[in-house]
Amino acid sequence: MIKKIKQTHASRIKLQQTSSKSINNFLQDFSNQLEAQAAAIIRANKKDLIKMDPSNSLYDRLLLNEDRIRQIAGAVRKVKKLTDPCGKILEKRKLESGILLEKKTAPLGVVAAIFESRPNVVADISALCIKSRNAAVLKGSKDADNTNRAIISIIRQMLKKNNLPVELILLLPPEREIVNELFTATRYIDVIIPRGSNNLIQHVRANSRVPVIETGAGVCHAYIHKDADLEMGVNIVFNGRTSRPSVCNSIDSILVDEQIASKFLPLLAKALKEKQVEIYADKTSYGILKSYPYLRKASKEDYYREFLSLACVVKVVKDQDEAMAHIEEYGTRHSEVIITKNNKAADRFLEFVDAATVYHNASTRFTDGEEFGLGAEVGISTQKLHARGPFALEKLVTEKWVLKGNGEIR
Amino acid sequence: MIKKIKQTHASRIKLQQTSSKSINNFLQDFSNQLEAQAAAIIRANKKDLIKMDPSNSLYDRLLLNEDRIRQIAGAVRKVKKLTDPCGKILEKRKLESGILLEKKTAPLGVVAAIFESRPNVVADISALCIKSRNAAVLKGSKDADNTNRAIISIIRQMLKKNNLPVELILLLPPEREIVNELFTATRYIDVIIPRGSNNLIQHVRANSRVPVIETGAGVCHAYIHKDADLEMGVNIVFNGRTSRPSVCNSIDSILVDEQIASKFLPLLAKALKEKQVEIYADKTSYGILKSYPYLRKASKEDYYREFLSLACVVKVVKDQDEAMAHIEEYGTRHSEVIITKNNKAADRFLEFVDAATVYHNASTRFTDGEEFGLGAEVGISTQKLHARGPFALEKLVTEKWVLKGNGEIR
Repeated sequence: MIKKIKQTHASRIKLQQTSSKSINNFLQDFSNQLEAQAAAIIRANKKDLIKMDPSNSLYDRLLLNEDRIRQIAGAVRKVKKLTDPCGKILEKRKLESGILLEKKTAPLGVVAAIFESRPNVVADISALCIKSRNAAVLKGSKDADNTNRAIISIIRQMLKKNNLPVELILLLPPEREIVNELFTATRYIDVIIPRGSNNLIQHVRANSRVPVIETGAGVCHAYIHKDADLEMGVNIVFNGRTSRPSVCNSIDSILVDEQIASKFLPLLAKALKEKQVEIYADKTSYGILKSYPYLRKASKEDYYREFLSLACVVKVVKDQDEAMAHIEEYGTRHSEVIITKNNKAADRFLEFVDAATVYHNASTRFTDGEEFGLGAEVGISTQKLHARGPFALEKLVTEKWVLKGNGEIR
Repeated sequence: MIKKIKQTHASRIKLQQTSSKSINNFLQDFSNQLEAQAAAIIRANKKDLIKMDPSNSLYDRLLLNEDRIRQIAGAVRKVKKLTDPCGKILEKRKLESGILLEKKTAPLGVVAAIFESRPNVVADISALCIKSRNAAVLKGSKDADNTNRAIISIIRQMLKKNNLPVELILLLPPEREIVNELFTATRYIDVIIPRGSNNLIQHVRANSRVPVIETGAGVCHAYIHKDADLEMGVNIVFNGRTSRPSVCNSIDSILVDEQIASKFLPLLAKALKEKQVEIYADKTSYGILKSYPYLRKASKEDYYREFLSLACVVKVVKDQDEAMAHIEEYGTRHSEVIITKNNKAADRFLEFVDAATVYHNASTRFTDGEEFGLGAEVGISTQKLHARGPFALEKLVTEKWVLKGNGEIR
């Protein structure tokens, strides 16, 4: 295994010496062949699906058809169109010594990604890594192994066709234990990105010596300030909770200022009822919402929950300080929103709430690489180093200092 | 312990709401009081020195006198003068949805630093952290504990005077085991920076769940290309090896093109002889240098060595490819230099050698935050995420996405 990882590490050098144009040619070929070989991918996908119970919620995520394959190919074409992230000059100046200094972006080297189920991830991450001149070590789940291997096979064919080393993209066997071998390969892997369940992320974080970029859970809050446009508040919460319940940027907790709670909560309940959203209510809001058909009592543990389903917590707070303290205590530093017409209150929220993404009067559902204009994302980072929030192509690079002199010594 | 760390974590909020001016007032007071209370610091320092054998190489690093305290105060004043690193707008654009998006710099939160011996580090890191609105958890060595505590006492007095929470800077007891308690405090510590021996760094890297920024060893190479100005080559290697042998940016390995080896090596030997530099020579260079008085045979292990003393490796290579492959295999990705009059060869070296800092015709000794115009540094990072090379004030921040809307939903 480590031998294969070393080969992948060595192969990155050839890629780093490849022009932007050649890389784009590869990406074009790859996306075309995804469509041309759709039948082979679908055959492989059927081998995976047959082993899964169709009532399993992962079944639909795993399923590929021609239309979905066209979407995957389209995403690869979008990556092709992005600006080359390498060799960008970040700083340039002459030092006192006379040396000319430049800071430039450069490839990371080898990116390891561990992911579960969805087969589009293989294509996305491979495209992003090659575009940024990084080799990649990928580990998918057993469930999707046939599908993943079919896609990797196309990647390797197209690497070969474009005179690039096939070792650039290494798909590991899907056994869970194999991940552990990556953790000590500090010389050959520059970053590990776990993308999947919280268990997986915690396991990687606890055991990897290779630096990790964490794409974690989102317990996102909406704070309805006393000066909120109540209708806007309802719209944003409804969108944040119900438009795609299973994603990390959806709203889990609604904090309502006590001055408007008795007006706002019935309006909100009316909207959420339509989607049969369960509400875990604190004492005060429970009193206001008592006729709501899907009402439960919130315990302290519920404040920590990322629901990933049609459920949320509602809590009445006495003021903005209490709302911000609640977010500080229970938030996961992902996406937080204040709804208010008061710009001063909004500025205070935006400045001092500690999260990757903070909003004033807009849905947290916008936290997404494509929405932010960054292109496809590797994930949403909830850590503070290197990449925070949507983690896209522009962050698949490191920096490098380049100094040119005329014999200067110190 | 964790209770105190929580207090430090909570105290960061007050600091984040403090103006740049108030922070600078604190730094001014702190630097003034370092000088005003020099006698007390020196008394505490004597208590540490008395426990150490004066022949110990750490003795001089630990020793403080009025002059050195003035230098420490001067460094704090320099930090004060640096631009506020927080709230810098990195990107700003209107999204298709109509939302106004900004990416800004923001404080990391809580920075933990673990360091050995030199007491200036307490003052430096505290000043850098407060300037960047981060709270700090510090752990020094037992050897320097009295001195560290004397400096921390001044910091706390001046925090109080400036209406800032004294909890902002927490000095942990100097016991080694206490470090382990930091490793799982992911909720309260945002980054750990180990600054010291390789053992310490490896221990932190292997055990911390909190993200680590590694400031590692430097096995730095000078490659004397066939078209080098030989005199310049001698000057740069002499400076890189002998000007301060114990630092990470000094030159350990000299790779000499075979076309010029028999001319260059005698010139180099003549210079290095003056400082009695030991040369570990490969077979070919051993033949050329056989009359050199401090000559040894190089084994493969020597190529991995960071000497930190007046010693180096010399190896004759057949061309630039071999030189670059050698650096790829044995380098620590810190600082590497090519000496040549051939700009094409230089460009290839600068572009494709994988290191934090790459040089053409200048000494690797310039790899330093102050030299690069960044101000005091926390260390030289040899990892690729977040900070690479001199790790200074500008990297003691994270990024934050701020979105302002008018009720946009997705």
